[in-house]
Amino acid sequence: MMPKGFLAAGVGCGIKKNRKKDFAIIYSENPCKTSVLFTTNKIKAAPVKISIRAMREKKKKAIIVNSGVANACTGKQGLKDALAIQAHAAKELKTGLNEILVMSTGIIGKRLPVQLIKRGVKKAVFELGSAGLRNAAEAIMTTDTRKKIVLKKIWISKKKVTIAGIAKGSGMIAPNMATMLAIVITDAAISQALLEKLWKSCCDATFNSITVDGDMSTNDCAAIMSSGEAGNKELKAMREAKNFSLALGNVCLALAKKIVADGEGSTKLITVKVAGAKSGIAAKKISMRIANSNLVKTAIYGNDANWGRIIAAIGASGSGANEKGISIFLGKICVFKNGNPLKFNENNAENYLKHKSIEIKAVMGQGNGEHTAYTCDLTEKYIGINASYRS
Amino acid sequence: MMPKGFLAAGVGCGIKKNRKKDFAIIYSENPCKTSVLFTTNKIKAAPVKISIRAMREKKKKAIIVNSGVANACTGKQGLKDALAIQAHAAKELKTGLNEILVMSTGIIGKRLPVQLIKRGVKKAVFELGSAGLRNAAEAIMTTDTRKKIVLKKIWISKKKVTIAGIAKGSGMIAPNMATMLAIVITDAAISQALLEKLWKSCCDATFNSITVDGDMSTNDCAAIMSSGEAGNKELKAMREAKNFSLALGNVCLALAKKIVADGEGSTKLITVKVAGAKSGIAAKKISMRIANSNLVKTAIYGNDANWGRIIAAIGASGSGANEKGISIFLGKICVFKNGNPLKFNENNAENYLKHKSIEIKAVMGQGNGEHTAYTCDLTEKYIGINASYRS
Repeated sequence: MMPKGFLAAGVGCGIKKNRKKDFAIIYSENPCKTSVLFTTNKIKAAPVKISIRAMREKKKKAIIVNSGVANACTGKQGLKDALAIQAHAAKELKTGLNEILVMSTGIIGKRLPVQLIKRGVKKAVFELGSAGLRNAAEAIMTTDTRKKIVLKKIWISKKKVTIAGIAKGSGMIAPNMATMLAIVITDAAISQALLEKLWKSCCDATFNSITVDGDMSTNDCAAIMSSGEAGNKELKAMREAKNFSLALGNVCLALAKKIVADGEGSTKLITVKVAGAKSGIAAKKISMRIANSNLVKTAIYGNDANWGRIIAAIGASGSGANEKGISIFLGKICVFKNGNPLKFNENNAENYLKHKSIEIKAVMGQGNGEHTAYTCDLTEKYIGINASYRS
Repeated sequence: MMPKGFLAAGVGCGIKKNRKKDFAIIYSENPCKTSVLFTTNKIKAAPVKISIRAMREKKKKAIIVNSGVANACTGKQGLKDALAIQAHAAKELKTGLNEILVMSTGIIGKRLPVQLIKRGVKKAVFELGSAGLRNAAEAIMTTDTRKKIVLKKIWISKKKVTIAGIAKGSGMIAPNMATMLAIVITDAAISQALLEKLWKSCCDATFNSITVDGDMSTNDCAAIMSSGEAGNKELKAMREAKNFSLALGNVCLALAKKIVADGEGSTKLITVKVAGAKSGIAAKKISMRIANSNLVKTAIYGNDANWGRIIAAIGASGSGANEKGISIFLGKICVFKNGNPLKFNENNAENYLKHKSIEIKAVMGQGNGEHTAYTCDLTEKYIGINASYRS
């Protein structure tokens, strides 16, 4: 069930072939507190620029998303097109222009088919409903093979609070909020300041800790909207928001894992835990370097316990690693202990690596820094998908 | 023909299967001026540690190299093994211990088969000759499919000077002297200070400007030895060494290109030129980011003029790019000009991308910084090779 106060829709308007769904609206009946993290890529798509500008006012009533065309690197025309869509949606939804966030995902460098999308806006507005989130999740997909939707309910001051999220991957996924689209809606009453703070830290541990291919997109956004209609006492301080923060973290982590598990061509989810690093920042550097290593990801694909590649990635991470203190685990199998290779049963390791979810753990022996990153294996299918994405 | 004063050999001693060559010696009859750049990976293999120590004395008589086993992440035992090989070679070659550089390349985490290699040392010393460099080039190969050897002759102060180089790739290739093994020998007379200076700048523009997969090895070294036996007047200042510097650059660039052209699974050499960047450093960042993008490399493999991925990589490079000034060329075909997409003939672009050697050029419109990086395409075969490297 949807968080109170929200409606959604996902429709096909002809941007994609074969009448696939390609346009979504997430709508709130009343203006929502909103927080958004945008791609850190210096080249930002037109919808990102439009949305950054719209965020000068924090209250939002809707997010509109099209897939198929990213409207990135499209010059002034691209800005005009994005604005036209935003204005059209504002008219149809009877909201202010800046109450609408615009997102696009798909091929870079192609113009938006503005007329088609305008028709899509009309169609989606007509279909807005409390059951529309699944369709919206489908409409934002590009090379994703599965919809990504997560729902969670918790109790805050005796009121039922709902958090719902949708996301899409699944290539050009790299850290620093340059990864994907994610939209989370909740009816929790929460102050704007706390919402922003929680959203930032939640994204750091989830959407900013995943990688499929290390490539950083020009388009990506993660947005949260809260309608406040659950009726709970407004959350203002971190200490009051523990349960909410935990639930939000769970929703985002579940979405983030869905993104990597559905990474282009992937067959396995890989969790990279780093502990005992000098600092949390060092731990993140190390875990992301391992998670971004083509050689590590290919070895896991091949069920090959080639831990040397993990160590090489650690050494290359720029985190001041010291070989002597390092231990490496594949699941529960220790393959390298305090700087020395351990004899282990290759068959056991190979059998472990055949699982659909693999854990790599690196203990650094330098401090208390911890971080967990998520990635997928690298397969022939990734190449196949990306060697002909535009055609 | 070899530079004067050098002998070489490459033999099989049983580290690799099927009696393949796996051990090489490059030997100088007299102590040589030597300069070496080592991997910047924090996790350094035992032979790298031994060779760094040996470089406290600059004069060298030999470089010994084994392939098949990298002797990296092998703890104290690995250091003992590398030292044992170094000592054995010193005895057989009748040199001082520190007159010998040790290099290893191959699988990480496996112990060196010391007894086999000792026999290899004996065999190689017996076979040392002026025609041995081709065998040495073969003996240092791992997943390389072709030997990499380059020879160049120039005239300096009316004396014939020879520069010869061998190198190996071909995975775990990334910038910052973490790329491969390269050994260049020359009979040019040159001062130690100038040799070091030239070697550093030459490597920056060649071996440190190539990438196959962005993975950084624990083992890699690029070494130059000069016997001085060409009889030319000793080169001491940059201005005297223009021709030598140019020839050395050509030798190293040819070797570097051979490495990427033979990158694991690759079908194409990709040259990434960046011009008009804020600085040379910014240009290098941009060109390496493009060259490391899985998505760019996969698109080129698929003959797909998907220039959006090039722009996305530029924006993600951390170089403060500004979309408005950017132009992108695939060969001579301009696909993006001053921040706007250009209409171009897709068939022409596809036909161009079918060539074996592709040039991507990005003009940034921000200054005079230039850099050229080299990479290869990313193919299904890379995955196949690396999913089962150890087996």
